Amino acid sequence: MTTERALWAGLSAIVEPGNRELGQVVRRAGPFVATEALCAERVSEQLVGAAATRLGRPLTVAAVEEFGHRLLADADRLGVRIVCPVDEEWPARFADLIRISRGYTGQVADRDTDPPLALWVRGPHRLDQAFERSVAVVGARAASEYGAYVAGDLAGGLAESGWTVVSGGALGIDGAAHRAALAGGGVTVAVLACGINRPYPVSHTAMFERIGEEGLVVSEWPPDAPPYKLRFLIRNRVIAAASAGTVLVEAAHRSGARQTLGRARLLGRPTLVVPGPVTSAMSVGCHEELRVEGTRAVASVAHVIEEVGRIGVDLAPLPVTPERPHDRLDPMARQVLEGVPMRRPLTAEEIAAAAGVSGRDARRSLPLLVTLGHVEVIDDGYRLARPA
Amino acid sequence: MTTERALWAGLSAIVEPGNRELGQVVRRAGPFVATEALCAERVSEQLVGAAATRLGRPLTVAAVEEFGHRLLADADRLGVRIVCPVDEEWPARFADLIRISRGYTGQVADRDTDPPLALWVRGPHRLDQAFERSVAVVGARAASEYGAYVAGDLAGGLAESGWTVVSGGALGIDGAAHRAALAGGGVTVAVLACGINRPYPVSHTAMFERIGEEGLVVSEWPPDAPPYKLRFLIRNRVIAAASAGTVLVEAAHRSGARQTLGRARLLGRPTLVVPGPVTSAMSVGCHEELRVEGTRAVASVAHVIEEVGRIGVDLAPLPVTPERPHDRLDPMARQVLEGVPMRRPLTAEEIAAAAGVSGRDARRSLPLLVTLGHVEVIDDGYRLARPA
Repeated sequence: MTTERALWAGLSAIVEPGNRELGQVVRRAGPFVATEALCAERVSEQLVGAAATRLGRPLTVAAVEEFGHRLLADADRLGVRIVCPVDEEWPARFADLIRISRGYTGQVADRDTDPPLALWVRGPHRLDQAFERSVAVVGARAASEYGAYVAGDLAGGLAESGWTVVSGGALGIDGAAHRAALAGGGVTVAVLACGINRPYPVSHTAMFERIGEEGLVVSEWPPDAPPYKLRFLIRNRVIAAASAGTVLVEAAHRSGARQTLGRARLLGRPTLVVPGPVTSAMSVGCHEELRVEGTRAVASVAHVIEEVGRIGVDLAPLPVTPERPHDRLDPMARQVLEGVPMRRPLTAEEIAAAAGVSGRDARRSLPLLVTLGHVEVIDDGYRLARPA
Repeated sequence: MTTERALWAGLSAIVEPGNRELGQVVRRAGPFVATEALCAERVSEQLVGAAATRLGRPLTVAAVEEFGHRLLADADRLGVRIVCPVDEEWPARFADLIRISRGYTGQVADRDTDPPLALWVRGPHRLDQAFERSVAVVGARAASEYGAYVAGDLAGGLAESGWTVVSGGALGIDGAAHRAALAGGGVTVAVLACGINRPYPVSHTAMFERIGEEGLVVSEWPPDAPPYKLRFLIRNRVIAAASAGTVLVEAAHRSGARQTLGRARLLGRPTLVVPGPVTSAMSVGCHEELRVEGTRAVASVAHVIEEVGRIGVDLAPLPVTPERPHDRLDPMARQVLEGVPMRRPLTAEEIAAAAGVSGRDARRSLPLLVTLGHVEVIDDGYRLARPA
């Protein structure tokens, strides 16, 4: 283990992710200079104070490095590796977060949207490859049966089409999406808000195990880090930034998943929303989001792929409806056909009146319609042919 | 009855509505010159042929006038009046149809989108006043219970807010909308595709009676005209043009109501769509329409009014959710609060680590949180206060 990797590891543990101040120094001068700046208190008092509190001893470069080495050794025993921005598999997409973290001064979760310092990862795939063709499928924990069904349907279809399903590992929509992606034989990535060895929710322990074997479990926090409430909101930007687009499946008016969609919007990524019954509280947030300019409604896997896929390559097919026998008639014949009655036969003149055409046009088109089998002749009149 | 009104009446019976060729002559030179042009065969052969077929005798100005007088007398006995473009109550909005009928060469229903020549009307309101603040609520005949419920909910709410509900009088969504508007004590307008004295569907006879007493029943076709299939599509443009905006409640992929929405789109009017379960075939058309640029999702009466109402006056309120106690805290106190545990008390330093703030910031904010009752002190630690 090099000093540099130990410093990435140490910093990722003592600085809460998304901090723009430290992120800028790291990007400009690397983790050693950033650690020095922190230890020499050349960054904000708040950042220094928080880091010292987390390290639990006086801030020195050596102490941070030692802490990092210990974290790396622990992670190694757990089958967890660290991926840093200097690594080849670091996803280029994260750089887009630099743009949105600029100038934000609001709530912590809105303000701290800098790219991750590093990611702790378990699973057999390269990060960049897993995320290349990926869609985030997120939504409410208190999902309805409808929401869980649709999340599963979309995620399963995406997996079968070779798309990675990214989500947050939570109860409800997230879990339904991960499970369906696994069932579809695809890659799924769970982005956690705590250490990878601390499955949260506990009831998803077996699911996280399986994702760690077939997909990827990733976190900005080192092993053992607890899932503080705020961390879910900080984490959401990683889900949005890692994916080509985000689908919101179900969300109440006040829902963390809406924030993930909001991040995708700020990042200029496709923001897709699954409509639901307007009578359902769990779709209120979805419909509010749908009313935001640029948000697209998606009702099928094909819709999602059309929105996130390459332009012109992944266009959704229109719903298939059987062609009607008269779809291929010329306009005049079609118009005449509209005037032909189903039961009591009418004369050509009467049909002309019904269809709003001249008697001559009706007399001209009716023989063709008879020949094609649309119309039958009864005595002196015409009516629609009965199906054979 | 003047000659001119008789000619309007006669023309409305022998020329199928929406015809641009005749409409242009009428607008430029009035109904007398238009009738002359028709009788002298100075318009297209097709138009002349259809008119002669309907009149049932050689085309002369006198014959058309006589026919019109008879229609007006019949209508008068039925309590039906004719409203012509020269009348004060003629809705100015219809003029927008001139724009969209220009240059169309496709199917009849797409091509023939000229303004109505005249409207046959039953009911106690002026046309222009009834339509001024009006919304079209349209959708599938084979509506689901969900669709009928939502249509009723929207139409009832619109009526209670003083908006006229316009629809096509059909089974399903249309009927649910009309009935709820009546129940809400509002004005509703049924735009029929046949003579006002030929209720279609027959099962809506009583409903049309009531609409004729409290709202308006209108048609481009004179009394006795039958409801040919094509007429529903020709009629749809009147629904779209008369209203400030159109709401599509439920529609299968292939649905006439989508055409009404399409007309509203061409007219530049708000095109609003009610989302539904993506698992419902009756919402497939709605979701396809939602994916068209400029279409807005609406989930409530307030949403509809916001879209069709005057800008800035009728903004929909955001869904009401109870304010949380800590919504008013300053950002630092809120962040510290996120680190306070629910059960086992933590020290200020531990809370600082959890919240990602410095120990000093935590020690500064905690007393305020205790004072405000958010946090309680247990021995040397802090935890969230239990509700009293």
